[in-house]
Amino acid sequence: MASTDLAALFAPRSVAVLGASERPGSSAGYVMRNLARFGYAGRVIPVHPRGGTVFGLPAVAALSDLDEAPDCVVIGLRAELVPAALEEAGRLGSRAAVVLASGFAETGAEGAALEAELIAIARRHGMAVCGPNCLGLVSRGSGAALYSSTISPEMPQGRTALISASGASAIALAHSGQIGIGALVSAGNGAVTGLAAYVAHFAQDPDIDTIAMVIEDIGDPDALATAMQAVHAAGKSAVALRVGRSALGQRATAAHTGALAGTEEAARAFCRRAGILDLPDMDSFLAALRLCGAQPTPPALKRAAVLGVSGGGVAHVADIAAETGLPLAELSDRSVAALRELLPGFATPQNPLDVTGAAFGGSGIYARALDILDADPSVGVTLAVQDAPPALAPDMATEYEGIAGACASYTGATPLVALSNLSAGLHPQVAAAYGEALRLPGTRAGLTAIAAWLTTPRAVTWRRAEGTDILPRALSESAARALLGLPGPIETLATSAAEARAQVAALPGKAVLKIASPDIAHKTEAGGVALSVGAEAAAEAYERIVASARAHAPAARIDGVLVQEMVTGGIEAMLGLVDSPPYGLGLVVGLGGTMVELLQDSAFELLPVTAERAAEMLDDTRLGALLSGYRGAPPCDRAALVAAMVALSEFGCRHADALEAVDLNPVRVLEAGQGLRLLDALILPKAAE
Amino acid sequence: MASTDLAALFAPRSVAVLGASERPGSSAGYVMRNLARFGYAGRVIPVHPRGGTVFGLPAVAALSDLDEAPDCVVIGLRAELVPAALEEAGRLGSRAAVVLASGFAETGAEGAALEAELIAIARRHGMAVCGPNCLGLVSRGSGAALYSSTISPEMPQGRTALISASGASAIALAHSGQIGIGALVSAGNGAVTGLAAYVAHFAQDPDIDTIAMVIEDIGDPDALATAMQAVHAAGKSAVALRVGRSALGQRATAAHTGALAGTEEAARAFCRRAGILDLPDMDSFLAALRLCGAQPTPPALKRAAVLGVSGGGVAHVADIAAETGLPLAELSDRSVAALRELLPGFATPQNPLDVTGAAFGGSGIYARALDILDADPSVGVTLAVQDAPPALAPDMATEYEGIAGACASYTGATPLVALSNLSAGLHPQVAAAYGEALRLPGTRAGLTAIAAWLTTPRAVTWRRAEGTDILPRALSESAARALLGLPGPIETLATSAAEARAQVAALPGKAVLKIASPDIAHKTEAGGVALSVGAEAAAEAYERIVASARAHAPAARIDGVLVQEMVTGGIEAMLGLVDSPPYGLGLVVGLGGTMVELLQDSAFELLPVTAERAAEMLDDTRLGALLSGYRGAPPCDRAALVAAMVALSEFGCRHADALEAVDLNPVRVLEAGQGLRLLDALILPKAAE
Repeated sequence: MASTDLAALFAPRSVAVLGASERPGSSAGYVMRNLARFGYAGRVIPVHPRGGTVFGLPAVAALSDLDEAPDCVVIGLRAELVPAALEEAGRLGSRAAVVLASGFAETGAEGAALEAELIAIARRHGMAVCGPNCLGLVSRGSGAALYSSTISPEMPQGRTALISASGASAIALAHSGQIGIGALVSAGNGAVTGLAAYVAHFAQDPDIDTIAMVIEDIGDPDALATAMQAVHAAGKSAVALRVGRSALGQRATAAHTGALAGTEEAARAFCRRAGILDLPDMDSFLAALRLCGAQPTPPALKRAAVLGVSGGGVAHVADIAAETGLPLAELSDRSVAALRELLPGFATPQNPLDVTGAAFGGSGIYARALDILDADPSVGVTLAVQDAPPALAPDMATEYEGIAGACASYTGATPLVALSNLSAGLHPQVAAAYGEALRLPGTRAGLTAIAAWLTTPRAVTWRRAEGTDILPRALSESAARALLGLPGPIETLATSAAEARAQVAALPGKAVLKIASPDIAHKTEAGGVALSVGAEAAAEAYERIVASARAHAPAARIDGVLVQEMVTGGIEAMLGLVDSPPYGLGLVVGLGGTMVELLQDSAFELLPVTAERAAEMLDDTRLGALLSGYRGAPPCDRAALVAAMVALSEFGCRHADALEAVDLNPVRVLEAGQGLRLLDALILPKAAE
Repeated sequence: MASTDLAALFAPRSVAVLGASERPGSSAGYVMRNLARFGYAGRVIPVHPRGGTVFGLPAVAALSDLDEAPDCVVIGLRAELVPAALEEAGRLGSRAAVVLASGFAETGAEGAALEAELIAIARRHGMAVCGPNCLGLVSRGSGAALYSSTISPEMPQGRTALISASGASAIALAHSGQIGIGALVSAGNGAVTGLAAYVAHFAQDPDIDTIAMVIEDIGDPDALATAMQAVHAAGKSAVALRVGRSALGQRATAAHTGALAGTEEAARAFCRRAGILDLPDMDSFLAALRLCGAQPTPPALKRAAVLGVSGGGVAHVADIAAETGLPLAELSDRSVAALRELLPGFATPQNPLDVTGAAFGGSGIYARALDILDADPSVGVTLAVQDAPPALAPDMATEYEGIAGACASYTGATPLVALSNLSAGLHPQVAAAYGEALRLPGTRAGLTAIAAWLTTPRAVTWRRAEGTDILPRALSESAARALLGLPGPIETLATSAAEARAQVAALPGKAVLKIASPDIAHKTEAGGVALSVGAEAAAEAYERIVASARAHAPAARIDGVLVQEMVTGGIEAMLGLVDSPPYGLGLVVGLGGTMVELLQDSAFELLPVTAERAAEMLDDTRLGALLSGYRGAPPCDRAALVAAMVALSEFGCRHADALEAVDLNPVRVLEAGQGLRLLDALILPKAAE
């Protein structure tokens, strides 16, 4: 139902409000008041069994008394009464509803049944439904303030749509004074119309540029990825704050909406693969919204220049940049020369750049320094660091106006962000001087937002693997290797001493020889095993093994001798697939062996994984460093591991429906050119349902 | 000179200002204006070669024209003129000086020589000197605003002393509106009077409760640790923000003051051991200052309760608490029962606690929930989460006033912190309703501050190791082990087969037997080695080795056979000491073996290390988990490792002056009760100077 048109929710021509009442605290009463407050120009029809008037508007006793179906009904009735009301609205021809009541899936089995009923009714009639268990929504364009709590039309207006699982967070963000709201949605349980449907709607909404999401439950990732394609196509941005990431946090949200989130690493991977900026806290979320609002498209170059009038101030920014993974640009020789000429002799022309107090007053030094950084081909974004807190005396604030003015009149092509180290606010006089320049408050929040803005791809590269190839129920290790198309130790059967010698000689190292007989179970006791055999000793070992076996078990059938590569050297990796609902399979790679959990060295990515992404994943692990030739050791076959990761990803995609997990550990990655060997391989099919 | 009294800097009876001028931009002119602005009541004497009046005050042509020495001289002259001026002031009997000029150690060798001259003069006359390369200082109590930049007496006044290496950061913090300033110091190079001296001064200053430090160079750690003892004794708090922690950040501060910081981990360890709250960014630093100002003594119980009116809001706090290492309390059964009775049925009585919208209005639910948490013996601090941003309409703000009022009238014994998820400010109407309740803006900054406040010990446990025991220049491995008093593999000499058998039997496992002869260099080639020998085979092996050796080298003197423990099993650790200027030796411990750098598993602590701290350090490493018996393996001898850490610490303390490093890797930690064995040991004495 992702294609349900949400116009009847956000721009209805008429709204019926069921349960409308002037009683204080009435949820439908709030909606009546907000519609008036936000100047909604459509028809508002209070519905109340007693009729009369509500807030001066004539009420009807029942929906069925209306001659024409309202576009949208707001159902301000208690949970048990909702299905009948929704059914009636649907039958009349209403296209949308807002269901305010709690008492649905968030409360247990009984509520879940009620919610299922609600979903069935909405689907039958093709209705969009905001809720249940929600505060509703506000559209600034239409004035449709179908919102059941106090909200003010004076909240700053703009081009951000805010979809929030938390009503309180929505109110806080919308009134922060930092962003302008074009639409606001408290989606509640999102039973019918979920996050993805709202995102798809705002992707097309000409009044919206930036989509802000406070997420407790990501909902349907497939639909959200599709909606994100529309967001990117429209050149818009989507920014997420996920709450309930920790075990305790999840407990609080679970109590709230009954939603169950996937693992943190899978959710993070999904956001990146869908091109959603994923911020870790409220302040950095707000900063990212401001940034995306001002500069929806980040620069191609992911490196920042930092300048300010204080060595300590720019040093602090450099410290936090290092912690938040924001690389600083290395200035060109030309910039260094230009800065040396511009700045006083005691200043050092470098990045981070302290232009010193010489930039105060009407010197123009600040503006010229900004232009030099703009012209530097290694700079992707310039961060102009300046605090000017609210309690400054007016004459002090005046000193900073020149700096703010230089930012305001900056016309460079490189994006400019004015950043303060303190988030404690800006002196109004200085704030005015910044004009339209983008300002972000607080070093850590600001730099976290800038890093997300710079490094989140603006594309959808995730699609759910939907392969339906089936898997046998019980797979031997060698069958698993064969299915994966990845090698174990090399193994051949020799039927003569000469063959054994040739086969051993063909191996990269030494061999283990084992008697091949269906009748000899305990090979070692039969003298049927030789370890560490080189080519020169292979023929003799063959003869000895066969003779021993014959002596030990005269009646046994002997097929020959198994020549098996002795895998030595190289590095132990682990590689695997793991089902990560609701996103499907993810691939993990890292240091392997018996200490995997202890080493805690793994990178995670959702399928499909390309060779490029596989290489990046290795760069994120200590395994990657080890493969490159740690402490003078010869480099290992990284290319073979990348190829195996891609092969495993493709295998996962083909068998997506059937796989619970794949666990390859250890994978011995040999010296460069020698490939890798799976020393253990486990494929775990999904339990039959 | 730590004992120099700083009263002449902060409360001088008279101040002479050298270079005083009404010329705009004159550094001494700023000081003249600020003294007037801050109502300094002492005598101000402008000193200018031309005499006349400066800002209406009669100037003298030279200091020597004065009949009485001024308590303090402010030297607003360029660097080259400073030594002569300081010498003259010292000769006259001035006890303090503020040296504003740059051009000293921060600029190179020539400046460093000038600074050395300045230091010698100040020491000779026993003068305290603020600077050089500084903006000076402001004391609110005396009105001594010896500050050479724009600053306003309207900056919020209070009981915080701010010592800042960055003038711009000091101004930003002092005017943030979040803290009240009692004194402010821009110490510049701190050549004579450094951070420690200021801290010692403020520890005794009755107008100061909280000492805030923006640090680029920690200066003299010994003196600072001593000063911190006075801070703790006075029940005051010291809070630090260190800038230039990253390589690039250090570059910017190095350009600024010529200071060189120690390693990040050593600096962190020092702060903890000195009882200094060490915050990672400006916002959390400010939050910690507010917290310490309101509650200098943290609760004994280091666990928080979180409550709010929104599931999403408290979940977000729980998420960030998990990330910042702030544990949440498990509520008592009694609290859960009380909350169940208090809250509506759909609310879940748990921590984090969503008291739901039922707490709005005059219900009293919020206040009663605060009291329930206060009474819970598992709660150390209660965090009341509520956003009320500035752009709220007045009627919306009114809804939050009840919550703010509940915090304002809270009288519980458990500290209460009102926290907002957004740092974007608070609606003035709600701010007023919070009254004297402590509010911290921004989840991450707030929780980071609370974690530091709760977990930083308020005591000094660091003292510089000053042992002067000397070390031989070149130490063999066995000599190194002997010096450390830590065992290598057990080794004895057997002179008969019977002895060999007894000695092998006494070992915990198998043995290696080696011919003991000063004349046989290549023992293996002489047939003089037997591996993996058990007691039953020891006598035979003894005879065989001796016979082989005699046959191989009939003339060789044979002392007998060396019986050496074969060290197998256990876990490889690494243990070491490393010189960490300016703090002296630090101890490191972690996973050992050849992959040490790759495993990146180490804990660091400055000497001395107690057994208790050694155990904590192990808890911080993956080695610690491995020692406890990873994946069903038998636990290893953790106690032996702890004892070795303490022994190594004591060794380090005894040889502090002589040691560059000790590197013990691998240390094989055997099964519990079996001790450990140093398999390699290197003691690196300091290079002769």
